[in-house]
Amino acid sequence: MDKKALYALSYGVYTVTSWDNGRPTGCTANSAMQITSSPATIAVSINKGNYTNSVIDESGHFAICILAEDSDPIVIGRFGFMSGRDTDKFDGVPYTVRGAMPVPDAACAYICCKVVDKMQTSTHTVFLGEVTDAGVTRQGTPMTYAYYHNVIKGKTAKNAPTYIGD
Amino acid sequence: MDKKALYALSYGVYTVTSWDNGRPTGCTANSAMQITSSPATIAVSINKGNYTNSVIDESGHFAICILAEDSDPIVIGRFGFMSGRDTDKFDGVPYTVRGAMPVPDAACAYICCKVVDKMQTSTHTVFLGEVTDAGVTRQGTPMTYAYYHNVIKGKTAKNAPTYIGD
Repeated sequence: MDKKALYALSYGVYTVTSWDNGRPTGCTANSAMQITSSPATIAVSINKGNYTNSVIDESGHFAICILAEDSDPIVIGRFGFMSGRDTDKFDGVPYTVRGAMPVPDAACAYICCKVVDKMQTSTHTVFLGEVTDAGVTRQGTPMTYAYYHNVIKGKTAKNAPTYIGD
Repeated sequence: MDKKALYALSYGVYTVTSWDNGRPTGCTANSAMQITSSPATIAVSINKGNYTNSVIDESGHFAICILAEDSDPIVIGRFGFMSGRDTDKFDGVPYTVRGAMPVPDAACAYICCKVVDKMQTSTHTVFLGEVTDAGVTRQGTPMTYAYYHNVIKGKTAKNAPTYIGD
């Protein structure tokens, strides 16, 4: 089996946010996709070890904040390689509440979801969310995961679905 | 709600194949993503009205065949806008059996999966597959959904998760 084939799947780069008892938090994710058109639903895969997983589970809401090619890579790193368990990830990160969810200003679009189902796997939870609000906040080309790797030379966190190894 | 925000999610373009009692069939899909790293699992969303949905359900196996920017768009159209119920979609489409699954030669990589779980939604089934084989078959830049829309000027089938309207 040549796992490099898995690299050929295409993704975006997202900050998935939620409310932790009134405090905004979130994590970086790339495994998100639309599942149904009407009503619109979105699935996102979040590692069970991520603090954001338990926060989404308790709050029942998440937002997919879509990063653009010109988004500050620091947002990706801050939300991807630190834990909201012991860090206030939004500290110093400008954001606006949209559709009642925290959306970093670095994002170019957002999709707010209410959890309606979930599927457990060995290491990740797939949350299925019904879209409650969505909007485009500014111009920008959505960042693809390929762009993140090839242009920004970004790395993949060990708890990501797409982690293969160093 | 501005549904154009949903367009900002990034995807690839895939032919999802399976065996219908020894006959190869499949459909075009873009909603596929890796869920876990070890063991590697992939989720794909297939409309319940698609013949391929029932074929995957019965056979318990599917392959994600990753199309490249130079893949013949006819493959996308043939697998996306016809039904395997009354059409032999592979008729005239060169393919090779890899990892025991049919893979169109138009693809640049493939991921074979065994169904280990599924989640039902109103209109689509999310199949979770454990990767049984994967490989890169030729050079090529994986086609993104944005490329399909913006460069090839391709359309979205009405039964796709990402269908918004004409």
